[in-house]
Formats: sequence, structure tokens, C-alpha cells
Amino acid sequence: MYINETKIRVRYGETDQMGYLYYGNYALYYEVGRVEAIRSLGVSYKEMEEEMGIMMPVLSLNMRFVRPALYDELLTVRSTIKTLPTETVIFEVEIYNEKNKLVNGGKVLLAFFDQETNKRVTAPEKLLQGLRPYFEKE
Amino acid sequence: MYINETKIRVRYGETDQMGYLYYGNYALYYEVGRVEAIRSLGVSYKEMEEEMGIMMPVLSLNMRFVRPALYDELLTVRSTIKTLPTETVIFEVEIYNEKNKLVNGGKVLLAFFDQETNKRVTAPEKLLQGLRPYFEKE
Amino acid sequence: MYINETKIRVRYGETDQMGYLYYGNYALYYEVGRVEAIRSLGVSYKEMEEEMGIMMPVLSLNMRFVRPALYDELLTVRSTIKTLPTETVIFEVEIYNEKNKLVNGGKVLLAFFDQETNKRVTAPEKLLQGLRPYFEKE
Amino acid sequence: MYINETKIRVRYGETDQMGYLYYGNYALYYEVGRVEAIRSLGVSYKEMEEEMGIMMPVLSLNMRFVRPALYDELLTVRSTIKTLPTETVIFEVEIYNEKNKLVNGGKVLLAFFDQETNKRVTAPEKLLQGLRPYFEKE
Repeated sequence: MYINETKIRVRYGETDQMGYLYYGNYALYYEVGRVEAIRSLGVSYKEMEEEMGIMMPVLSLNMRFVRPALYDELLTVRSTIKTLPTETVIFEVEIYNEKNKLVNGGKVLLAFFDQETNKRVTAPEKLLQGLRPYFEKE
Repeated sequence: MYINETKIRVRYGETDQMGYLYYGNYALYYEVGRVEAIRSLGVSYKEMEEEMGIMMPVLSLNMRFVRPALYDELLTVRSTIKTLPTETVIFEVEIYNEKNKLVNGGKVLLAFFDQETNKRVTAPEKLLQGLRPYFEKE
Repeated sequence: MYINETKIRVRYGETDQMGYLYYGNYALYYEVGRVEAIRSLGVSYKEMEEEMGIMMPVLSLNMRFVRPALYDELLTVRSTIKTLPTETVIFEVEIYNEKNKLVNGGKVLLAFFDQETNKRVTAPEKLLQGLRPYFEKE
Repeated sequence: MYINETKIRVRYGETDQMGYLYYGNYALYYEVGRVEAIRSLGVSYKEMEEEMGIMMPVLSLNMRFVRPALYDELLTVRSTIKTLPTETVIFEVEIYNEKNKLVNGGKVLLAFFDQETNKRVTAPEKLLQGLRPYFEKE
């Protein structure tokens, strides 16, 4: 199991007139969470797209909204990979507020997609290398 | 069962560098879809918030991404209510492209929330009145 | 002089906790305005990019915020071209609310840019053809 | 003169199909820049709104786009206040990329607005206190 935590501060333009982080902006925070998760494994998503030619389109997104996130709160986005990726990868995401209360929880399923062949491929070896130590049996 | 269809054209600023409608922007289209769905029943969401004091926070969001939506495409957002709302309402959403192919499908669960008492309430009578004819047995 | 008017309804997700259309979202409305302005001349921006290989990067943006735009308001975006485009084009934009009061006014300067040669070019002939009748002396 | 620098990384969802940071998203970066600028003076904008009842609506925005900002770039937003605020404040903003090249430059004019009286007021004393040392004659 691999866990990464990233901090994101809620911007004014991301709130809505209810005074909360707009429900549609959580997907953006999930994106930042998973990009930082793989960066800390030594793989930048930019490099994956530009050098390896691999895109990661989102196949599905499920989220539940537990409590509102407020303007200027410094949220913690915890992204977890529980299974070694194959042709797809699942990120389980939990977002906590400054009082460490759960704000939002969800799951994103993404595919690895080769831009040249236009087909699904297995996760890049560099990513798997970074992840394997977290999935070895003790 | 109540069905409403609304058209939304994909804006340039809503695409990402993959050349597709960014996955996080679908939630915004779902919002437009359900707002227009209830407007065509004679209830504006603005009026609900400002005159009736009822907000509709989103409790959960589930979506699957079937094929990409492209810049400038005129999408059709079909919002369906299959069960008469109680203290919550479910919108089932399907988004189709100009070739009438499914782009995205999903479900949003929202609550009716009284701003004054800070408690969940049943759906406003005006909304239920608009919906009942679609749920009567033949 | 060529004038086009387009309607845009303010989305919930585009407001901020002040209860107004977020100042950063006006640029998106300006975009919709100018895209519809050239579409009504028979040129789609999508076609310009994909078939003619011409992009229109923004060089400068100036806007003044006169009064707030509110959730669900149906705004009128009036886009005006006062001078026949050369290698650049200026859109002067005014946004009015439902009471026909000015909400926002501004100016955008864009260039015509050839994706292949990576150089500025003059406006596409098809666009100029559409515009010329509006600039002929009486 | 008071200068503050803040780092912002370009999110995937903030790019457009040109592959650049969408021109409309710079306003969001300007917001983050000025909020962090006043935070480092000991004043949080959240506190200004919620405790002092002072909002800061934007009156005008001017920006020029010098070169594109790319996905995942870690930009530096430099916000400068050159004149001690009165009933308004001007932030001059420059955004630099990782190679320290200017990406965007601009100016935002904001007012101080009392939510209760619904009138313009002078900048809060706490903000002025933080700024004065930067404006004293040597």
C-alpha cells in the first residue's frame, strides 16, 4: 500500500456562494493529489505524457461529500494506491481539513493509454519500480 | 419518471492539454443540467435558496467517462429523476455528443437543507407539485 | 464596426463566497462572446485551429468591474470589432445584466498565429470576408 | 514598496487544448499572490472578511501575456504594492517561469468595502501597520 499526502489551500475563486469549496473543484484537488503522489515516487506525470507518450484518462470518479471545506483552509489530500497498477490504477482519496476532520472521500480509476498506438498499456516500468517496495510481502 | 434535456457547448477554457473537456468540469455540466431540469418544472434554484431558504448540498457524485468530449461540441445533458424526492433527490445524468454517442454517465445525490434551522427538510412543495404528474400511475 | 451579442447564464460554480460571479470567470465569458461573434460570421474558431492551423493567443486583457453579476442571471455579452483585423484583432466587450445595466467592460487583444511556421500571420481570409461588409464606407 | 513572492504549480485542469495555462486562470493566480502577500504581513484575507467585515472587490484588471505557462511549471508570482493603500490598493503582478522568464505582467485595483455600511472605507489599520515599515523614508 502506498500513501501520499499533499496540502492544498482553498482559493477564493474555488468557493461558491454557499461559502464552500464548490463540489466540482474536488476533482482538481484529486488531480493534484495523484500527481504529487507519483512525483514523490520519482515519476512526473508531465514526463509520462511528454517523454513516454502515456496519458492517463480518467475512467470513473466516485466521491462522497462529508462536510464542507471553507475558504482559505489548508486541506490535506491523502492519496492511496492499494493494489499495484496493471493497465489501470485506482487512487483512493481522502481530504481532511485543518481540524483533521474528513471533508471528502472518493475513488478515481484511470487507465494507462499509449498516445501512439492509441491503446491501453500496462503502467510504465518506472512507476512500477517506485511502487513495488510498498507492495512487497513482509 | 421525469426527464429534462439541456444543451451545453464546451468552452475552450474547459478543455485541458489532452484536448478534451477536463474531467473536473463535468460536475459543472451536471449542475447546469439539474438547474435547468427543475426550472422547466417552474422552480428556479435561485428562488429556492433566496426565497425558501433551502440549499441543496451535494452528498455524493459518481460518474464514468465513456468517451472524450471535444472543444466546441454542443453536448446534450439528460437529467432524470426516477423517484419522487423525499429529504434527498437523485439526478441520473447522461451526456451525449453531437453524434448522439454517450460521453459520460453518472448519478448525483443531493439533500434539501433548511438554512435557518440548519437541518434537512423534505423537498419544497412547489418542486413536488411540479414532479407529481410524472410519477402518477397510469 | 461589427457587433455581436451572446447570452450566458451565470452558473453556481462560477460564483464565489461573496455571492458574485468570480472576477476570474469573466475571461471565460469574453471567450464565449468572441467565439460566438466569429461563428455568426460563418467562421468557427475550432475550424480555424484544426483546419487552417491558426491559433489565437491572447496578448492582453483589460477589464473594469462596474457592478456584480449574480447567480443565475442571464447576462448579455456584447462583443465589438471596431477595426478590421490585421495580424491582431481587438474585441471590445461589454457585459450587461437582465436590467440592461453594465456589469463589466473591457478589451482583449489577440494575435493570429500559424501553428506550422510558428509565426504571426494576417487574419484568415474567410474571417476578413465575413467582416468586410461591416467596414465598408457608405 | 512591498514585494511578496509566492509559488504556484500549474494544474492539468488549468491548461487548455493549446497546451498552455488558460488565459482566464491567471486571475486566480493573481488572487493567490495577493492573499499570500497580505498574509505575510500578518493579515489573512479570510479574517478581514469574517472578523473585520471588509471585502475587497476588484475594480479593474489589466494583464499582458508575454509567453505561455506550461503544465506542471512551478511559477513565481511576484506581487508588489508601490503606494500605501487608501480606500483602494493596487497590486502590480509579475509571473515568472522556472527559467525566470516573464510569463505575464499586470495590475489589479481593489477597493476596501464595508459589508455593514455598504460603503468604501480606508484600508484596515492592521494592514496599514504591516505595510508602513516598507514605505518609510530612509
